[in-house]
Amino acid sequence: MTEKQLESKNILINSTRLMNRFNKISQIGLNPLTGGIERQLGTPGDKAARSWLKDIWQKELHLNVYTDAIANLWGTYGKHLENKPIVFGSHHDSVPNGGKYDGALGVIIAMEAMQTIKENNIITRHPLEIISFTGEEPNTYSVSTLGSKVLCGRLNKDDIFKLSDCYTKKTLASTIDYLGGNSEKINEARLSRDRITAFLEFHIEQGQRLFKKNQSVAAVSCITGIYREIITIIGEANHAGTTEAADRRDALCGAAELCLAIEGIMRECNNLSVTVGKITVEPNSSNIIPGQVVLTLDMRTAYPDEKKKALTLLTKFTQQISAERHIKIQRELNLDQSEMPMSENIINSILQASVLENQPAVKLVSMAGHDAANMARLTKSGMLFAPSVDGFSHCPQEYTHPEDIAIAAQVYLDTLLILDKELN
Amino acid sequence: MTEKQLESKNILINSTRLMNRFNKISQIGLNPLTGGIERQLGTPGDKAARSWLKDIWQKELHLNVYTDAIANLWGTYGKHLENKPIVFGSHHDSVPNGGKYDGALGVIIAMEAMQTIKENNIITRHPLEIISFTGEEPNTYSVSTLGSKVLCGRLNKDDIFKLSDCYTKKTLASTIDYLGGNSEKINEARLSRDRITAFLEFHIEQGQRLFKKNQSVAAVSCITGIYREIITIIGEANHAGTTEAADRRDALCGAAELCLAIEGIMRECNNLSVTVGKITVEPNSSNIIPGQVVLTLDMRTAYPDEKKKALTLLTKFTQQISAERHIKIQRELNLDQSEMPMSENIINSILQASVLENQPAVKLVSMAGHDAANMARLTKSGMLFAPSVDGFSHCPQEYTHPEDIAIAAQVYLDTLLILDKELN
Repeated sequence: MTEKQLESKNILINSTRLMNRFNKISQIGLNPLTGGIERQLGTPGDKAARSWLKDIWQKELHLNVYTDAIANLWGTYGKHLENKPIVFGSHHDSVPNGGKYDGALGVIIAMEAMQTIKENNIITRHPLEIISFTGEEPNTYSVSTLGSKVLCGRLNKDDIFKLSDCYTKKTLASTIDYLGGNSEKINEARLSRDRITAFLEFHIEQGQRLFKKNQSVAAVSCITGIYREIITIIGEANHAGTTEAADRRDALCGAAELCLAIEGIMRECNNLSVTVGKITVEPNSSNIIPGQVVLTLDMRTAYPDEKKKALTLLTKFTQQISAERHIKIQRELNLDQSEMPMSENIINSILQASVLENQPAVKLVSMAGHDAANMARLTKSGMLFAPSVDGFSHCPQEYTHPEDIAIAAQVYLDTLLILDKELN
Repeated sequence: MTEKQLESKNILINSTRLMNRFNKISQIGLNPLTGGIERQLGTPGDKAARSWLKDIWQKELHLNVYTDAIANLWGTYGKHLENKPIVFGSHHDSVPNGGKYDGALGVIIAMEAMQTIKENNIITRHPLEIISFTGEEPNTYSVSTLGSKVLCGRLNKDDIFKLSDCYTKKTLASTIDYLGGNSEKINEARLSRDRITAFLEFHIEQGQRLFKKNQSVAAVSCITGIYREIITIIGEANHAGTTEAADRRDALCGAAELCLAIEGIMRECNNLSVTVGKITVEPNSSNIIPGQVVLTLDMRTAYPDEKKKALTLLTKFTQQISAERHIKIQRELNLDQSEMPMSENIINSILQASVLENQPAVKLVSMAGHDAANMARLTKSGMLFAPSVDGFSHCPQEYTHPEDIAIAAQVYLDTLLILDKELN
């Protein structure tokens, strides 16, 4: 072992404290009927989690705590140091009836790493800043990774002021203010590219790859690109009884064929996922042949060639179905977000830390979007994953074994110390 | 020509008056933006159509007008005659954004026949009664052919008092009272089997069979049976990005396969229609694999053997899909309404009248449900169809040529006169 490795080995996270804190935050926004978490952007659960975090950051971690204009929570330490800070954290918000681990565990692990460093009186070369981002999950304001999008300049004040809750019509700006942000000053939350040395995020994998291989931790090599279309299938509404087979232009049957063709694309391509998650039928009445169907296509891959192949297949299928069924198929691009490779420095640091903790050096593509993808536009950005039992995600069944959490948290701490040493 | 035929030939409907009245009722509940009709059960359009009808029935047709407890409108003439009455009519309500012809034209033709008979001072052997039924169309109270169901005893007061508007929660009972009925006395609206000599209804075909063959009128041989299931497909909701193909149990892909299998059943069977008209997806979010889909199956045929064959195929397909995709498929019977043959007396009278008016003798199965099917439980019941251009139904594009309307109305009048002569 090298001197550096020996050093890290002596600094150990407190997994009991970590799990106690995780169990506490898991009570905030807990739905006692379903066991799920209700901490969607702007809800009382979101607000309560922020109070709880700020309180511990101030009273137990003794950090300088502040809320930026888009309501990201920051806890900083070592402002006097001359290097630019290393930032680490995740998000505390959830999807409706979400899991306990998604996001929140990344914040709790960041807190544990920060506290362990402070307790051990380690003099880091960089200031350390923990962050819990605003609105990472898809929400009723139709924007995800909101906090990091503002930090990196993908969204500005004008964009934010156009958004409102699709049900209540409450403006996003008023929600940001309710959460402690300052909607008038949102543009001031944007960070310049030279403001941060590196960004590190822990997250559960949300898939089954680590779980199936019985591995406790992995470095994320790349965050998937996400491509979305809204596809409208236009047939002709008509009477379910009196319209003979030859006269039907059933939009739902056309949509059904398209769904199965899209499912087939996933088998034809490698390392690519495609999903039709949302579908709306008009007039949606049991005795009327559907006249129109609108569906969403969500395609994810880290490999542009696979995406190109998939889109060629999609075009072929939509043309075939349209021609054979005499229905119109209109495609509208909704999102085309490129894959985002993580920093090689950080990947290597995570792999080095994994080996130090007797774990195999594993790299994975993240098939979900994360704040780390936005942070990669500002600085060296990286992520660690821990396994999700049975791959459950965004549901009350989410679970990660405490043993895996302890290992991943230790690798996370080691990674931070390596980065602090190696980066300038 | 026989004496009877000669007689009928001399009594001619007034097609100008008929079309003028049809154009007037077509203004009631007209949506000027879409050209569609809004006269759903209990709406202001429904109420206004009733006022307009009552006014003409009293002032121009000089009928004895009353509203029964379920709010069916009646206009009667010849109460002093000793035979039981011949009843004829249809309904004035519409689906949302419906067509002008569906129902209303049947009421206007009944009025024209009644007025022509009275103007010609024909002494019928039976009293004549015209009716415009309450709530024939599917509506927000989840009940169709409401007025005739109460007349024939398929629904009673207790049933009605359980129903309310699925959106406004307004009770059906209060709507019946608003329309001039008497919800407390609904059971008194029920008719005994010996109350009526015969029932005759005119309706547009709502399909393309007459239109394609360029025929102006047909006798309905049988009203289709309607069988409905609510089918629930239960897979597993999961993250659209992180769930690999092998781990997916996508309820929407299962539903898509089922929709196409159901479409195939329609090709395998004869004289049978099957439609999936309504579909609900959970959680219906673009980035979540659908966990549950609920869909409706609507199957119609006049031939029990074809229904049996179709249901055997459906069972086979649901079992296959369930097994191959590791998803659950639950089927729930929602409606099983047998086919209803029309009276041979009335069919023959319509065919005889058709020939009298130089029309081919055409018989058709009605693939839509009608009040005449309920009336067949009480008395000899029959229907005439006129063609629908391009088969449009339940939409603003509904259209029937005035020439066809005039021919069908004349055949309708002739049929009534034949029935009056032949039935006791």
